[in-house]
Amino acid sequence: MSFERVAIIGLGLLGGSIGLAVAEHLPGVVTTGYDADPAVRRRASERGLAGTICESAGEAVAEADLVILCVPVGAMGEAAREIAAELRPEALVSDVGSSKRSIARALTEALPGQPVIPAHPVAGTEHSGPDAGFAALFHHRWCILTPPSNADPALVAGLAGFWRALGATVEVMDAEHHDLVLAVTSHIPHLIAYTIVGTASDLEEVTRGEVIKYSAGGFRDFTRIAASDPTMWRDVFLNNRDAVLEMLDRFLTDLEGVREAIKASDGEAMFDLFTRTRAIRRGIIELGQDDARPDFGRADHG
Amino acid sequence: MSFERVAIIGLGLLGGSIGLAVAEHLPGVVTTGYDADPAVRRRASERGLAGTICESAGEAVAEADLVILCVPVGAMGEAAREIAAELRPEALVSDVGSSKRSIARALTEALPGQPVIPAHPVAGTEHSGPDAGFAALFHHRWCILTPPSNADPALVAGLAGFWRALGATVEVMDAEHHDLVLAVTSHIPHLIAYTIVGTASDLEEVTRGEVIKYSAGGFRDFTRIAASDPTMWRDVFLNNRDAVLEMLDRFLTDLEGVREAIKASDGEAMFDLFTRTRAIRRGIIELGQDDARPDFGRADHG
Repeated sequence: MSFERVAIIGLGLLGGSIGLAVAEHLPGVVTTGYDADPAVRRRASERGLAGTICESAGEAVAEADLVILCVPVGAMGEAAREIAAELRPEALVSDVGSSKRSIARALTEALPGQPVIPAHPVAGTEHSGPDAGFAALFHHRWCILTPPSNADPALVAGLAGFWRALGATVEVMDAEHHDLVLAVTSHIPHLIAYTIVGTASDLEEVTRGEVIKYSAGGFRDFTRIAASDPTMWRDVFLNNRDAVLEMLDRFLTDLEGVREAIKASDGEAMFDLFTRTRAIRRGIIELGQDDARPDFGRADHG
Repeated sequence: MSFERVAIIGLGLLGGSIGLAVAEHLPGVVTTGYDADPAVRRRASERGLAGTICESAGEAVAEADLVILCVPVGAMGEAAREIAAELRPEALVSDVGSSKRSIARALTEALPGQPVIPAHPVAGTEHSGPDAGFAALFHHRWCILTPPSNADPALVAGLAGFWRALGATVEVMDAEHHDLVLAVTSHIPHLIAYTIVGTASDLEEVTRGEVIKYSAGGFRDFTRIAASDPTMWRDVFLNNRDAVLEMLDRFLTDLEGVREAIKASDGEAMFDLFTRTRAIRRGIIELGQDDARPDFGRADHG
């Protein structure tokens, strides 16, 4: 099965990219879009993020056979309630959020009886809003589906086909495992980046100007991640709390070990760790998940 | 004053880039180079990293009026002792190491009476070795000089002019302050990156394959830094121990605060932090210290 009318609720980086990617890869599919912010709707019209930008969420979903909620994790339940009355009974409701257990719960509660298959394309940039989206965002990226155990296999296959058409590789896993995996590969890295950038801003002995000037020593990489959308990330940490705390405690234990090695001037322990970590980078490059050029191929800017 | 004969000891990323940058920007200056590894010397000859590649460090420095040690921080003392007998008495000895107090001590002890002005160009990539260097590495980057209080102002000005010719902006500060600033902008970011990549590799619940596949969620950025040269970084942590531990403890305190906010579901505290950190990113972009394009302008690889 394939979808013919796709509604996108929320027209930021992810929603906008889906709209543009559908236009490019599935030109026969009709898209409608809605965003709660009138300024975003206006900009979405100008950029053509969906075929029709509607003035209400209900209007956007009324004819759709696939509805994708692209709002912050904490707003999923409300967005679902807003469309509940207008949804066609057989329409599939999905999303793009970074924490799957909480979203499965929110959508199932808000939409009893409605087919729901949560999804998470692992892709993004530090930019947000209706100007940030682009059609190639999902190329060579993974999209994880977390169907409930009673999901219709035809709908799972249809949603997988949709994401593959947009350029993604699809994996299916249970929501609990997803939340643990993403805690490691995404949530903890963001948490650490936000925290160290905060630490550096608050120092008295080192000025903010110095931090900025000498950021090419490594720090500037963290500031990119720490420039991501605050609402989205607050909601991720509120909604994937247990997995994040579990992984954070592993990291804290390891960091304490490295701290002891530095204190004890244990060069061997440090050398071992610093050598081991290169293998993961090689794996990421080999799988086409990062740019092999030095410094991500950054331009010589300035 | 300006230098006419520059000797480069150590022909990895930094040493090689200096040789290539001198050839490009100071074509009248004669360069000699040496590396303890014969394979590196061979490759350095092929790439033309210096005008003459010598078979001993003594031979490389014998005629030089500026000698730049580009070896790991822990090898500076030994490299200085190796050249001591051949140095011209008025030759200026400098370096490129990331920890300035320990290097000042090592060089002054090894070379009594010799002019010594430690320096640190804040530039690099995750690659290392004789193939990693390129002439533009120092463009739009800062180079910090940490002259001892009795340094000859003419030599300080000469060294500053040399780095400016290579494309860098020069700042002068005392070694102690340098070590604190770099602990924040470079050493702690590397330590955190190495640690989180280690944590992720060691998990049992999440496979290494999953970590690699879903790394585009943020984690892959950390793997770039954690692919940096292990010997160089071991030496940095052994030699800037006090400043690193001081800054690490600030970070740990802040991370503990964020952990409590997550535990308490304190969305407001998170939102405040995540909003505050965007300002630093803006400062870095405005100062031309990073690529403003989303995702560092990474290619759509794969």
